[in-house]
Amino acid sequence: MSRVLILGGGGMVGQKLAHRLLDEGLQGAACEITCQDIAFPSGAAPVAHQLTGNLADAGVMEGLAAQRYDVIFHLASIVSGEAETNFDLGWQVNMQPTWRLLEALRAEQGKDPHYRPRLVFTSSIAVFGGPYPDKISDTFFSAPQTSYGAQKAICETMIADFSRKGFIDGMSIRLPTICVRPGKANLAASSFFSGIIREPLNGLEAILPVPDTVRHWHASPRAAAGFLTHAAGLDTARLEGRRALNLPGVSCTVADQIEALREIAGNDVVARIRPEPNADIMKIVEGWPRDFEPERAMSLGFKAENDFREIINIYIEDDLKRA
Amino acid sequence: MSRVLILGGGGMVGQKLAHRLLDEGLQGAACEITCQDIAFPSGAAPVAHQLTGNLADAGVMEGLAAQRYDVIFHLASIVSGEAETNFDLGWQVNMQPTWRLLEALRAEQGKDPHYRPRLVFTSSIAVFGGPYPDKISDTFFSAPQTSYGAQKAICETMIADFSRKGFIDGMSIRLPTICVRPGKANLAASSFFSGIIREPLNGLEAILPVPDTVRHWHASPRAAAGFLTHAAGLDTARLEGRRALNLPGVSCTVADQIEALREIAGNDVVARIRPEPNADIMKIVEGWPRDFEPERAMSLGFKAENDFREIINIYIEDDLKRA
Repeated sequence: MSRVLILGGGGMVGQKLAHRLLDEGLQGAACEITCQDIAFPSGAAPVAHQLTGNLADAGVMEGLAAQRYDVIFHLASIVSGEAETNFDLGWQVNMQPTWRLLEALRAEQGKDPHYRPRLVFTSSIAVFGGPYPDKISDTFFSAPQTSYGAQKAICETMIADFSRKGFIDGMSIRLPTICVRPGKANLAASSFFSGIIREPLNGLEAILPVPDTVRHWHASPRAAAGFLTHAAGLDTARLEGRRALNLPGVSCTVADQIEALREIAGNDVVARIRPEPNADIMKIVEGWPRDFEPERAMSLGFKAENDFREIINIYIEDDLKRA
Repeated sequence: MSRVLILGGGGMVGQKLAHRLLDEGLQGAACEITCQDIAFPSGAAPVAHQLTGNLADAGVMEGLAAQRYDVIFHLASIVSGEAETNFDLGWQVNMQPTWRLLEALRAEQGKDPHYRPRLVFTSSIAVFGGPYPDKISDTFFSAPQTSYGAQKAICETMIADFSRKGFIDGMSIRLPTICVRPGKANLAASSFFSGIIREPLNGLEAILPVPDTVRHWHASPRAAAGFLTHAAGLDTARLEGRRALNLPGVSCTVADQIEALREIAGNDVVARIRPEPNADIMKIVEGWPRDFEPERAMSLGFKAENDFREIINIYIEDDLKRA
């Protein structure tokens, strides 16, 4: 039975992934799951092992590497806003532990040449910086405009080189903005993309801090779990040495999002969205990618939703009805 | 008088830069030059200070940062072939010290907010990996196929982020293959590009290990020194947050190189080139960029040669006649 480690397994996407693996296994076969994080939510997925600790602490990555997991999903990171405010913490958490993990896995590979784990790293569209073409192609360059984006781009490059040398078999997937996030709003500048759908559907008011002409790139939490399991089973020879991938998603404006909500839930629900322009948030969001042409990922079988209605329906099905 | 540090100041390009600064100063004003390297050639440029040491040693970068140089040229690195053979050494020399330099400069900036040095980092076209378009544009992505290229790409990303945050004022310039290198052949796979010009002009036989249809991207050592001094004086606001630049160069085939040599030096000199196909070298060279469209660098005033004849004539003028 293959052994799977989820770093950042206590987070929203980590939990979606853990549930998916418990339900469906990995490539259809049951697996033994270990989740690692600094904390876990109550009612976390009932995986085989739940490890609590800080990946930035000395020896933690080395200890995990010594367990020789078959598949490692690396989702752990400080979020964008925090990495921007706390420069040291961002690099300490988002870059250094990845380097130590790679070095530790390489050391294990040195002891046993047959050991070569699949590493799936969640990167982000934050590796890009504007100005953008209308659609970002698979060969558009990375010029991050946040420390978070820089840290993700650097980890991608390390993972590609350790993989090229045969120490691991890794790849990086650049997630779209995950929407609709269940639970409470957070302080991320992107929080409103989920908030304007989630809050009204839960009978609450939602603030819309940007004009409804803002266009952005989305995928559901369910799609995110699917990207991860698909990446874990991919024949990486098909990547031809280009081990970071732009993923499929839904490009739509905030007006499109609101219209989809109206079609699904009606005018009364949409009326709970209150425009309240926020120049700070607008300035951040203006720098974000709006649309992609992820031909490689699509030809490799990665799938997201077809439109924003589908994204809302997944939230209703996976989260709202289960709450 | 501005104070200038050249890391890797003992190398070929470092020495060309030191001589240029001694002759012309920096933006026309005399400067105090410190060269740092693990070793210096005999007859090295007579700069104010010559420091010998290993940048990978603990405390070395911190000590240099504490000197608060106005301009730092960072040319120090393990070459491509060595970084590929000795994986640990490559990362220890080509990545870690750059990180420590940035952190140390940031610490100095924290003590004195007025201190914000210009850092010019010599990156490389090795940040790219094939397959390539006919001409590589300024927004073509980095997918290095060597550890050296990965290390350069990572340093670029760090330098851009430390600059964006205002800790330094840095930029990275991706040098073409520098040709004609004076002195002896080295073990680099690119060595023959210089060898087939230099050796015949010095009355020696040269081996050509690849077909003469191979196309590559060149600039002279004199152009390299010019790129560096131009970068040191550039208004970096014009970079608009995209702080790594593809530089201008000459794209030509080996046949073009040989024809230029024939025009300048005649058939007898060209007859000293002996084709001796080497599959290993061909395999490496096949992965290299062939041509660029460096619009940004050209609009920012960076200049290289117009054709390969000019490159040969610069070798004759700057090196052959002075030897």
